[in-house]
Amino acid sequence: MTDRPKTPVLDRVHLPADLKRLTDRELHQLADELRAETISAVSVTGGHLGAGLGVVELTVALHAVFDTPRDKIIWDVGHQCYPHKILTGRRDRIRTLRTEGGLSGFTKRSESPYDPFGAAHSSTSISAALGFVCAADLGGDPGDAVAVIGDGSMSAGMAFEAMNNAGHLKKRLFVILNDNEMSIAPPVGALSAYLSRLYAGAPFQEFKSAAKGMVSLLPEPFQEGARRAKEMLKGMAVGGTLFEELGFSYLGPIDGHDLDQLLPVLRTAHARATGPMLIHVLTKKGKGYAPAERAADKGHATGKFDVLTGQQAKAISNAPSYTKVFAQSLIREAEADSRIVAVTAAMPDGTGLNLFADRFPKRCFDVGIAEQHAVTFSAGLAAGGMKPFCAIYSTFLQRGYDQVVHDVAIQRLPVRFAIDRAGLVGADGATHAGSFDVAFLANLPGIVVMAAADEAELVHMVATAAAHDAGPIAFRYPRGEGVGCEMPAKGVPLEIGRGRVIREGSRVALLSFGTRLAEALKAAEALAARGMTATVADARFAKPLDRDLILNLARNHEALITLEEGAVGGFGSHVAQLLAEEGVFDSGLKYRSMVLPDIFIDQASPEAMYRVAGLDAARIEAKVLDTLGIAVVGKRA
Amino acid sequence: MTDRPKTPVLDRVHLPADLKRLTDRELHQLADELRAETISAVSVTGGHLGAGLGVVELTVALHAVFDTPRDKIIWDVGHQCYPHKILTGRRDRIRTLRTEGGLSGFTKRSESPYDPFGAAHSSTSISAALGFVCAADLGGDPGDAVAVIGDGSMSAGMAFEAMNNAGHLKKRLFVILNDNEMSIAPPVGALSAYLSRLYAGAPFQEFKSAAKGMVSLLPEPFQEGARRAKEMLKGMAVGGTLFEELGFSYLGPIDGHDLDQLLPVLRTAHARATGPMLIHVLTKKGKGYAPAERAADKGHATGKFDVLTGQQAKAISNAPSYTKVFAQSLIREAEADSRIVAVTAAMPDGTGLNLFADRFPKRCFDVGIAEQHAVTFSAGLAAGGMKPFCAIYSTFLQRGYDQVVHDVAIQRLPVRFAIDRAGLVGADGATHAGSFDVAFLANLPGIVVMAAADEAELVHMVATAAAHDAGPIAFRYPRGEGVGCEMPAKGVPLEIGRGRVIREGSRVALLSFGTRLAEALKAAEALAARGMTATVADARFAKPLDRDLILNLARNHEALITLEEGAVGGFGSHVAQLLAEEGVFDSGLKYRSMVLPDIFIDQASPEAMYRVAGLDAARIEAKVLDTLGIAVVGKRA
Repeated sequence: MTDRPKTPVLDRVHLPADLKRLTDRELHQLADELRAETISAVSVTGGHLGAGLGVVELTVALHAVFDTPRDKIIWDVGHQCYPHKILTGRRDRIRTLRTEGGLSGFTKRSESPYDPFGAAHSSTSISAALGFVCAADLGGDPGDAVAVIGDGSMSAGMAFEAMNNAGHLKKRLFVILNDNEMSIAPPVGALSAYLSRLYAGAPFQEFKSAAKGMVSLLPEPFQEGARRAKEMLKGMAVGGTLFEELGFSYLGPIDGHDLDQLLPVLRTAHARATGPMLIHVLTKKGKGYAPAERAADKGHATGKFDVLTGQQAKAISNAPSYTKVFAQSLIREAEADSRIVAVTAAMPDGTGLNLFADRFPKRCFDVGIAEQHAVTFSAGLAAGGMKPFCAIYSTFLQRGYDQVVHDVAIQRLPVRFAIDRAGLVGADGATHAGSFDVAFLANLPGIVVMAAADEAELVHMVATAAAHDAGPIAFRYPRGEGVGCEMPAKGVPLEIGRGRVIREGSRVALLSFGTRLAEALKAAEALAARGMTATVADARFAKPLDRDLILNLARNHEALITLEEGAVGGFGSHVAQLLAEEGVFDSGLKYRSMVLPDIFIDQASPEAMYRVAGLDAARIEAKVLDTLGIAVVGKRA
Repeated sequence: MTDRPKTPVLDRVHLPADLKRLTDRELHQLADELRAETISAVSVTGGHLGAGLGVVELTVALHAVFDTPRDKIIWDVGHQCYPHKILTGRRDRIRTLRTEGGLSGFTKRSESPYDPFGAAHSSTSISAALGFVCAADLGGDPGDAVAVIGDGSMSAGMAFEAMNNAGHLKKRLFVILNDNEMSIAPPVGALSAYLSRLYAGAPFQEFKSAAKGMVSLLPEPFQEGARRAKEMLKGMAVGGTLFEELGFSYLGPIDGHDLDQLLPVLRTAHARATGPMLIHVLTKKGKGYAPAERAADKGHATGKFDVLTGQQAKAISNAPSYTKVFAQSLIREAEADSRIVAVTAAMPDGTGLNLFADRFPKRCFDVGIAEQHAVTFSAGLAAGGMKPFCAIYSTFLQRGYDQVVHDVAIQRLPVRFAIDRAGLVGADGATHAGSFDVAFLANLPGIVVMAAADEAELVHMVATAAAHDAGPIAFRYPRGEGVGCEMPAKGVPLEIGRGRVIREGSRVALLSFGTRLAEALKAAEALAARGMTATVADARFAKPLDRDLILNLARNHEALITLEEGAVGGFGSHVAQLLAEEGVFDSGLKYRSMVLPDIFIDQASPEAMYRVAGLDAARIEAKVLDTLGIAVVGKRA
């Protein structure tokens, strides 16, 4: 383990109240130590580094000026909260970040009173802050509310809705726009510091008109992604017109790494604001750690690393990730079909569509953090004759659900939904789990819903989706690496609504939808060791169901158990509906449906999470024995 | 029936291409006739009148200037499309609007090639139009795309996301902002007409700067609702800065009832636009029909009426509507508990919260068309110690689904969801059906999901929700009138997860969730006439399930049939999961789950829709007989 940094001032800070006893000079020192401690902690745990480093000074300034936890600081997304956690009584556990039983990688209400509103998905902070403000106004929990939101998150419609409402309600509310895509050249920072000192005591109107002069000196945005939002911000910086149209006072831009600007500006804002106020703070992702600053993603997310060199400990990979297999398969299909286009909502890297964009720059659309728009834009592309693949994580597809129903399914438009991160996802925990998509999609008339059992299946499902023009089609696949199976030379479209039997047996049938197939096969092996053969089948489709396969499995086995990486209401529920309608239960069938349990599962490795969920091979085996009434030691918990 | 208006010019228009042969003078006449025909048609059918009357001239101008259906006109929401339908080959069926087998009250792809993208929910048009534009650009269906969107719809985050993306992509795209809340005083209109003629041939920049001068002459907004969006628009009118920040050229405002402005401006825009362009059109809802103009809602939605007097034929009401019962119950609870607050997303009248707002103006929040924000804002209110009732139609709650999962359920915040319009809704058709909420809510850990069987139950469920502080709770109820049951003096909190037996019988148990209870009781009566007694129970809760009740029903009857006004994946699926886990199916149970069928059901009366859905008393009776293997004439179709 790397040596811990020396942190004499930080060592005196146990809770934010301790900051009130520090001089401004000590706060500078505290920020430096907090940065070092953050780097040290993440070097041990891995996690979101860049965002936290970008808000070290802002974190110190906010806690120094506001009175937390009475005042509520709401970090949008929450992945920038590690410094905040260190300052709010969680330093002793900071090296457990994102591990089983450890601190969450995001803010979390159950973790600390200093996390008044948890997050992980973006763009929720202003809505939540406005809720606190209105509650306080009506006799609820008192105190100020401060939303800290990035420029990317600000581009989501939800943030706009909240600004629109806040401007109307005119209540005292602070929105810190953490604009971390614009680098701050020294002269600008110096001028800005000068202006901050000069105008902090003066009416905001004067401050602002002076600030206008600074904007021409700002360099161009230097980073890809949300470039549009960036241009918007440039416009706003010129007086913050856009925010003022929405009823906010606008203050900034100020250098978010200069406490000599942050502290006076926040103190003045805190002392004087009567209505909604937006403070525009320029920060640098990865600030103060050279390897992060140098990295293309500014140290956005990292594995464990060596603090001195920034070198990450790489896990040895046995198989390609599902994400990469999806991207490569889509590229192959797109080479043969010029109608294939791809849409991502600000996740080109996460979805693998960066590879697609490299190959087909004009056929790939990154629409920003805007899932609602992404889905309906895809519907428009489909109505215009294209074959759009709309690649969205399961958990984020929840943001575009109405659009899936209203714009895609009702109109039977052939939008292809590539649903990455299906099922439990590991270190990101419950907020990122893809638990509900099968339930919320498979009951939509006319849609096809598939799940890949392994990475070879994913190749075929991409081909199936490309070939399916009759209506919407979705295919889901998990986070992480495949199982290392042999890969097909090219994808071959599957027959819609047709599953496959993988292993023939008797007495019990395991019918898997998705990547639990491997666990089902392991369970079947274990059962074979007990002298019991199990049939194992891969459903491939939750909709339409393979009726023949399912009814045959039910009729020819004493027990039928479905498996899926999703909550009740999904695949198993559709199977049960079929079996009920066909009268299969009338004369008795030992039917069970193994689904995600009725709890939100905290972060751990995916394997550990599936153990908690009761969906690993051991639990499947136990379920079979229990269902058949075979008593064993160490059975079903 | 009222006499048909005389329409000599309109009679010569069968398709939009016919408009190209008319002079501008004839187009004026056409608009007048189109208005008269629209009024005449709606007087016969009822429906959305005000919005259509507001866009009569715009409809004529768009079809005169653009080349539909090659060019795509996408009407946001779509309830203003009646004049468009009359001009696009559907005049002969215009008096079947919103009736079974008739024209949809919205745009609909399957109805006409002139409806390139259907709608009914708001704020989707810009996303769809951008999809068409990008498709055309890549070799798909050619032509221009024109989104026509109201100022209210523009306030939704989704529209902002689309604007943000369109401004980035810089492709030729037309957005007509149909700003129908600002009245146009004659002098302004005249000046505007003058300016239009004067500057239509000149560069837009000049037009715009001239337009700036007009703004000071505009009267204040005169209508409630979206007042904030209104102020925003005023700001935009001063040069359209906000839209320009988003990368759009801005043109306007122009008088949307003056073809002498509309035609030259649209022609110029059509001839010259190279990138995204927003044309700001001021219209008046209900324009040109005095009874609508006089009405508080500007004739937004109306029953059948007499054209001369505007007098509506009122249906005789036997029982209060569920909406009203909800509102009155909530007011009663709020009188006793100052922590109760209410949130609506631009539907104060539809949800009944206008009554609540009258009584508690400070405790009612209309956040605009912004369901995402509405849910998370409610979560913030709850975190701040209040008891928020977030009242959203089932179909619109789909817009805030991720927020229900991420901000409410994961944090176990006690937000109360009042879900109106659950199940099939009648004339608004498939787009407004509340079919999926039980499925997408009941699998969220920690939530309570209820459905009211009648209006008295709704009173108790409001009380239950008010009393339940342990986590989120939802209760659903249908559109329309209650069953006329006796009403309790006050609501009494129900025991969480406890259903009730309504009628004792043997052999078959009917377990209803929601208002199918009345049909179940009717079916039981019919069965009794056959000498067969049926137990009828009201589940009240889909989550948590009443395990004892359900297992007892299963154990003591030959058959158990669940009933619900929702798609598969909901109540019945949770019951099946319980029965499977408990091994009830092992030894046989005639179990059936009657859910909404796997089709989107077109508009008709709710009763007719439930007949199509197979969920009326006759079908329930038939299902019982079929399940029990009793052959009858006219059984299950």
